[in-house]
Amino acid sequence: MKGYAMLGIGKTGWIEKEAPKCGPMDAIVKPIAVSPCTSDVHTVWEGALGERSNMILGHEAVGEVVEVGALVRDFRPGDRVIVPAITPDWNSLEAQAGYSMHSGGMLAGWKFSNFKDGVFGEYFHVNDADGNLAILPDDIDPAAAVMLSDMVPTGVHGVELADVQFGDSVCVVGIGPVGLMSVAAAALRGASHLYAVGSRPNCAKIAREYGATDIINYREGDIVEQILDKTHGKGVDRVVIAGGDNDTFAQAIRMLKPGGRIGNVNYLGSGDTVSIPRVEWGCGMGHKSIAGGLMPGGRLRMEKLASLLSTGRLDTSKLLTHRFQGFEHIEEALMLMKDKPRDLIKPVVVM
Amino acid sequence: MKGYAMLGIGKTGWIEKEAPKCGPMDAIVKPIAVSPCTSDVHTVWEGALGERSNMILGHEAVGEVVEVGALVRDFRPGDRVIVPAITPDWNSLEAQAGYSMHSGGMLAGWKFSNFKDGVFGEYFHVNDADGNLAILPDDIDPAAAVMLSDMVPTGVHGVELADVQFGDSVCVVGIGPVGLMSVAAAALRGASHLYAVGSRPNCAKIAREYGATDIINYREGDIVEQILDKTHGKGVDRVVIAGGDNDTFAQAIRMLKPGGRIGNVNYLGSGDTVSIPRVEWGCGMGHKSIAGGLMPGGRLRMEKLASLLSTGRLDTSKLLTHRFQGFEHIEEALMLMKDKPRDLIKPVVVM
Amino acid sequence: MKGYAMLGIGKTGWIEKEAPKCGPMDAIVKPIAVSPCTSDVHTVWEGALGERSNMILGHEAVGEVVEVGALVRDFRPGDRVIVPAITPDWNSLEAQAGYSMHSGGMLAGWKFSNFKDGVFGEYFHVNDADGNLAILPDDIDPAAAVMLSDMVPTGVHGVELADVQFGDSVCVVGIGPVGLMSVAAAALRGASHLYAVGSRPNCAKIAREYGATDIINYREGDIVEQILDKTHGKGVDRVVIAGGDNDTFAQAIRMLKPGGRIGNVNYLGSGDTVSIPRVEWGCGMGHKSIAGGLMPGGRLRMEKLASLLSTGRLDTSKLLTHRFQGFEHIEEALMLMKDKPRDLIKPVVVM
Amino acid sequence: MKGYAMLGIGKTGWIEKEAPKCGPMDAIVKPIAVSPCTSDVHTVWEGALGERSNMILGHEAVGEVVEVGALVRDFRPGDRVIVPAITPDWNSLEAQAGYSMHSGGMLAGWKFSNFKDGVFGEYFHVNDADGNLAILPDDIDPAAAVMLSDMVPTGVHGVELADVQFGDSVCVVGIGPVGLMSVAAAALRGASHLYAVGSRPNCAKIAREYGATDIINYREGDIVEQILDKTHGKGVDRVVIAGGDNDTFAQAIRMLKPGGRIGNVNYLGSGDTVSIPRVEWGCGMGHKSIAGGLMPGGRLRMEKLASLLSTGRLDTSKLLTHRFQGFEHIEEALMLMKDKPRDLIKPVVVM
Repeated sequence: MKGYAMLGIGKTGWIEKEAPKCGPMDAIVKPIAVSPCTSDVHTVWEGALGERSNMILGHEAVGEVVEVGALVRDFRPGDRVIVPAITPDWNSLEAQAGYSMHSGGMLAGWKFSNFKDGVFGEYFHVNDADGNLAILPDDIDPAAAVMLSDMVPTGVHGVELADVQFGDSVCVVGIGPVGLMSVAAAALRGASHLYAVGSRPNCAKIAREYGATDIINYREGDIVEQILDKTHGKGVDRVVIAGGDNDTFAQAIRMLKPGGRIGNVNYLGSGDTVSIPRVEWGCGMGHKSIAGGLMPGGRLRMEKLASLLSTGRLDTSKLLTHRFQGFEHIEEALMLMKDKPRDLIKPVVVM
Repeated sequence: MKGYAMLGIGKTGWIEKEAPKCGPMDAIVKPIAVSPCTSDVHTVWEGALGERSNMILGHEAVGEVVEVGALVRDFRPGDRVIVPAITPDWNSLEAQAGYSMHSGGMLAGWKFSNFKDGVFGEYFHVNDADGNLAILPDDIDPAAAVMLSDMVPTGVHGVELADVQFGDSVCVVGIGPVGLMSVAAAALRGASHLYAVGSRPNCAKIAREYGATDIINYREGDIVEQILDKTHGKGVDRVVIAGGDNDTFAQAIRMLKPGGRIGNVNYLGSGDTVSIPRVEWGCGMGHKSIAGGLMPGGRLRMEKLASLLSTGRLDTSKLLTHRFQGFEHIEEALMLMKDKPRDLIKPVVVM
Repeated sequence: MKGYAMLGIGKTGWIEKEAPKCGPMDAIVKPIAVSPCTSDVHTVWEGALGERSNMILGHEAVGEVVEVGALVRDFRPGDRVIVPAITPDWNSLEAQAGYSMHSGGMLAGWKFSNFKDGVFGEYFHVNDADGNLAILPDDIDPAAAVMLSDMVPTGVHGVELADVQFGDSVCVVGIGPVGLMSVAAAALRGASHLYAVGSRPNCAKIAREYGATDIINYREGDIVEQILDKTHGKGVDRVVIAGGDNDTFAQAIRMLKPGGRIGNVNYLGSGDTVSIPRVEWGCGMGHKSIAGGLMPGGRLRMEKLASLLSTGRLDTSKLLTHRFQGFEHIEEALMLMKDKPRDLIKPVVVM
Repeated sequence: MKGYAMLGIGKTGWIEKEAPKCGPMDAIVKPIAVSPCTSDVHTVWEGALGERSNMILGHEAVGEVVEVGALVRDFRPGDRVIVPAITPDWNSLEAQAGYSMHSGGMLAGWKFSNFKDGVFGEYFHVNDADGNLAILPDDIDPAAAVMLSDMVPTGVHGVELADVQFGDSVCVVGIGPVGLMSVAAAALRGASHLYAVGSRPNCAKIAREYGATDIINYREGDIVEQILDKTHGKGVDRVVIAGGDNDTFAQAIRMLKPGGRIGNVNYLGSGDTVSIPRVEWGCGMGHKSIAGGLMPGGRLRMEKLASLLSTGRLDTSKLLTHRFQGFEHIEEALMLMKDKPRDLIKPVVVM
């Protein structure tokens, strides 16, 4: 079969490869729609995962089941399914502890285009089909549904980690596709004042549509100062970090009230450390909690988040600035993600 | 001063009374807008609190501060304020334990028209002004703001008690004003499918506007059966009880998934017991949790919920079906609440 | 193979049966030590699960693995293992939601001597070996370890459901083997005053050893009155129900402070309803939460609880009042459980 | 009156000062027993709070009430009371949000020897007597009870922040008096393997008595390596930081499992930042949460923790290595704390 692969650090291309084999609990799926992710760019051009050769890329997809293993109960060939980026081993100790995304080791619930071939092939393999696939409801557009693989659950998880409560003031740093989903999720979780930090006008516009009450543009001054101004010096109840870099944490600590929480879902790809400013962190005593984590994947999460689309609570189609038709456009879509033209939020490729 | 009072069980009327005295931590407030509550009806005509004579009624108000005690730091005469129905003693053991509404004894955080005169007077007394008043933002209509005293916090608390999570299916039983606020709050908390149980067409219409996806009318069959039908036999993740009677709990247990939660904010005014059906409750082992509680009051809660109005997340004006102008209309508004005409949701009296 | 079985309601006996088959994720285990449970008695003599014929009884065991399926990674023949009474399907939606004990339906994580043969056979079958077995540490006596199958996790779960915090006053109703484990767990969780309700002197003695500060004997008066007396009318912060009957809930509500929680782990085998007293429940507004649930099973839970034995935090051997040597004594042990002589807490049969 | 004071940075001495005045909600208390704290040393000799002159030191005391304000309900002259180091304003927004220790600003619940005179005077002032004092039970030795002011609640809070669960493996860094209380609290909360990091033999001995299963001595090698060795490379579930310095956090991250939590109660007195190692923190995605906070104070907390002493769950007397009799020995006790002789854990001065 054909697949679009990382050939080595800095190199990508189409390759031929044997189709994946289906274990007794697994499914083989062919893509209906896929989307490249910034992580694919990091994997290839920054070597974020280290060397990989001839590994098919991609971890965001909806598809059609073509084969299931003998132990699979709930899926059969022909089913149209949502595929989460994170596909845990559900009987692992980590999953039993509530951290399925770390099943088999920290971050090891992430398998596609990491420990095995990703979804940019004619076929791809899904471990534990019953535990990790969800039926794609007929009322959801497959292109919009691809956002359920990673953008929605990652954005939502930032809000969960920050533990947003009714009436909280919230700052979301970053308004790329994940940040926009955090904005939408914060509004959907009961935030009141919702400060979205970013500078691209198209993203700012959509952030407002998703519920941001204020756009904080770092080109217009220090973001912490801007937020302290707007909150009369009090700061915010919660910060969701969905962009920026290692230095964003220091800003988050400075803009946070005592008793506040930071929820990070930004993958920190470089640097040795994240620095927490001692005094603003209350000398370790300020109850400004710092949490960060990989999105939870698996079937239930996909079903729950899909239900937000079905019931019209969340509209992911606003993210889809670039649509392609046909498998062969995967390369073009990935390059778009790499080059990040100013009008891009997310590209999607429908087969 | 004048006040509209409970004269005795079953009897109300205007009385003359000495104006309330202001203690060192307290405030004296004159009403700007008030609303009668079903609780006032229960208090007078069902004797829900027992005998009371010449007790001024009412616990939903916004007003203007006319006097503050010597220890009050943050309020002064002339301030326009939101007044919560529940005004705890914040240094009590119960408040320190996180249950301020029970400060001084179960339900004893409820003082207006219970242990002291309510807000249907020319002036009323607020204990611990710094802890219990909140500034009324200029951008909120006082009539809409009155709903912050009780309807909003009670409706919201049902959703908190039921612990609604992203994508949960939720049933709200009752679509009177509190139930409608629970519907709005469930949608605002990330519910997907949202089943609202009620029969009045105007309420059903507004329930849909607040986010209900389905209206369940008990005139069209057993509500549990209807919900099991709509959920393919699985039931819902959460039930908020904001209406009905003691038998509603049995229905809620039957429609709830294992691991689900019931959040009750309906005051149960009669009957000896609430009966939980043993088998459907998993013989005590089904992890169907039952929680119920009086709304949290106080200043922070008022500020947070007011911010939902200021930022346009919640629009309480839909509840206000009947508006009166002038103090003297309090009687009329209360009688409306007693008689419950079919088009009534909530009356409000603006001075 | 031989097994001790329920022949029908009210009848037990030894039967011959084919040895169980091992699926790809499963294990076949032969018992090292087993213990009968009150549930076995309910199953047979009260027909609690309905009619069953020739179903091998028992769900508390440690054993030796004799066969594993092809997909099992972490266990091999010869391993000595702890077997939880509850063996979930870990990839089920319920498990993903945090309620693995209800995987496949309410209470359906309980499989032994319910949906399949139990552990009182020469061999028994364990679904999902990697997810449900735990290595028996060498430093734990197998007889003491059998208590990890059900008594310890059930007792502990009552304390978790009641959410005991540092310095809480706690009442544990029932001081049979599960209640005694709840007493030990409450002390181990930071309870201060710990009221254990029961009347049998040997159990009372052990309850004190496990940390009870007061024994409340219902023969000496109403237990609610006794507890209110001892707490100067305030009641307790938490109640764990590990015995009694449906009426125990009303007592628990009456002795509970507002903001308190009830954790039930007593299987309610009869009666139509559990009645909650309206007024003492604060008319539905008292924040007296009611939770009840089947113990969580699975590997991680077994490993964690076993570590409490290994580190000397918990000594289950005090429960073992009657020890038998040899498979053939299972019948005798079960009859002891049925007849409940006054000096019995738990019998154990070591092979 | 006389008091032992900070005269300026680096200088202490006895001073004469006017006795404190009692506001309407307050109490004036004369000490029965007091203890100096490492914070006093930091305040004076490291200038941790900045310049202060003629400020009476000390924040750990039990005492006798000599005067109460007109609004005080529950205390009267002659009452023997426990005084928490942290005395919040309970009606503040921060307290209503559950963070009373930050009432009025981050860390501002700490008032003694910070914003006002401390407890090393003939008399001292307690704000909000009803909210912040607790009756000293007759069954508790006053010297042992002084540990309830700060050592116990701080140590306990580290365990709460780390959210220790039944059977968790826990590392407590630091076995000074706070760390020892964290060790005791972790054992009392259900920890199994409990690794205490420290080197002083007398502290190590007491750590074992309080429940440590292993002492990790940094003189015997890298503490992270030692813990990874002992846990077969898996790390621990929780880390409580009760000692060390800013670099301790990097060690804690490295020894923590994904899904683990750090609870810090060590006041970080110097350095610009706390550095979190990026890779071991899972690139921000490892669900290794970092929490740190000042102890909760107030009356309820004192009552609950005192009940652990009354019921024999916790014995603080082991901490009291040096006992003095007489007010005039405060200086000697403080100097002991400054010089930290090898056999010192905590000095106490009984009047």
